[in-house]
Amino acid sequence: MKAPHYNRFVLPESQRDLLEIVLVSPRNPLNIGAAARAMANFGLHRLSVVAPFDPTWREARSAIGAPELLVNAVESATLSEAVAGCTMVVGTGTLTWRKPEQPVIQLPELAPLVSQELARGGRVAMVFGSEKHGLTREDLSWCHLLVEIPTDPLQPSMNLGQAVAVCLYELTRRTESAPATKVPSVTSAAPSGRLDLLAGVIEEAMQAVGYSPRAMQPANRHDLRLLLRRLSLSAHDTRRILGLFRRILWRLNHLGR
Amino acid sequence: MKAPHYNRFVLPESQRDLLEIVLVSPRNPLNIGAAARAMANFGLHRLSVVAPFDPTWREARSAIGAPELLVNAVESATLSEAVAGCTMVVGTGTLTWRKPEQPVIQLPELAPLVSQELARGGRVAMVFGSEKHGLTREDLSWCHLLVEIPTDPLQPSMNLGQAVAVCLYELTRRTESAPATKVPSVTSAAPSGRLDLLAGVIEEAMQAVGYSPRAMQPANRHDLRLLLRRLSLSAHDTRRILGLFRRILWRLNHLGR
Repeated sequence: MKAPHYNRFVLPESQRDLLEIVLVSPRNPLNIGAAARAMANFGLHRLSVVAPFDPTWREARSAIGAPELLVNAVESATLSEAVAGCTMVVGTGTLTWRKPEQPVIQLPELAPLVSQELARGGRVAMVFGSEKHGLTREDLSWCHLLVEIPTDPLQPSMNLGQAVAVCLYELTRRTESAPATKVPSVTSAAPSGRLDLLAGVIEEAMQAVGYSPRAMQPANRHDLRLLLRRLSLSAHDTRRILGLFRRILWRLNHLGR
Repeated sequence: MKAPHYNRFVLPESQRDLLEIVLVSPRNPLNIGAAARAMANFGLHRLSVVAPFDPTWREARSAIGAPELLVNAVESATLSEAVAGCTMVVGTGTLTWRKPEQPVIQLPELAPLVSQELARGGRVAMVFGSEKHGLTREDLSWCHLLVEIPTDPLQPSMNLGQAVAVCLYELTRRTESAPATKVPSVTSAAPSGRLDLLAGVIEEAMQAVGYSPRAMQPANRHDLRLLLRRLSLSAHDTRRILGLFRRILWRLNHLGR
């Protein structure tokens, strides 16, 4: 079968520099590494870390095979400093227990806004809080808007690395121009005449084994015809099935003699 | 400002039981835990683990505070067994280096298909391979279709827990307010286990008539498995074909005596 378009990555190259991930006071080096990995998966490379917990940060940064984007990450003392160059700052988190002071939107609604901002050359920061407390009210005050990942109210709080992955997936998933993949037809379909030929052989086998009593034959023939069309058999499939049933018939006749 | 609709979780309660996550041979307990956490975030609770690496699995399962869904996870020896009750089996992974034998779609295109299948009461499995090798060709042969997360070609391979999170986000993100009414479907699809049963009977017939020489049997078995999934047989079709082949087998044995 023909290979479809793999890895259709949709954030234009020119915009990747304009979207940055900011981690505020992360503590777990595994989470920092996971955030960096998700960024690499979705083609981003600007990572900022605000007031990192020192030993953790050094550990993550100096891990063997630490990705370049971790090594190149910018460290800031305050969120204010980290997002100083950004035109749109988006805070993330579960906000159920807070009374937000900014507009809150759901993640699926964010992409068009970010897309618009990036398209006009703005800089966008996605800000993630620490694993334990999320973003503080003070942190949020630097955000233009807050975004929420729609999760189950019973277990709303996501792991940091997973939250970064989900946000970046959403922001890069836009496929508007991408024609929806046709539900792939594997090969060319068998023409009707071939299906009739196949039906004939199957029917013969049915009769040879006494599957289809005489009175039922017209109804069975009808059903079989519908069945073969419903299956949308390819020419190749048809050939194989035909081969099998011919072989079955031959064997039946041979044994019967 | 007025608080908007938080935590708008969109997979209807009635469908959460129908969507299951299958991890094939996971090795890292942190990843198993992360997959479970993502499931909880997105309101799912059916987890299946195939041939888990033992110490790892026990460790993940018995971790303090292990979520209920991890404790209740179903363990199977084979993927065939794990998905036996599913009508739609979706393989995940990076397929750049493989020539897939099934239809491949991009993740953003998957939601409507899954949604339709769930709405008509089908069971859907999302299958994830091991961290190291992903799904094997053998694993994939139980899948009706393959889905790819659109990632950067330079770093296509995602962390297991992050991949699960992204897939579940996508499958539950639909906000079109789509009423999850039951799409009346004339037929219901045959579950994977029935297809395996059918394949077994057809294979027996193939051997009985000498269609499948011994050397070709593994290849023929593989092809047959793919074929039966490609045909999207209904439960009714499956029953009929099974009946026919059983009859053929009976007759062959009877004549041979």
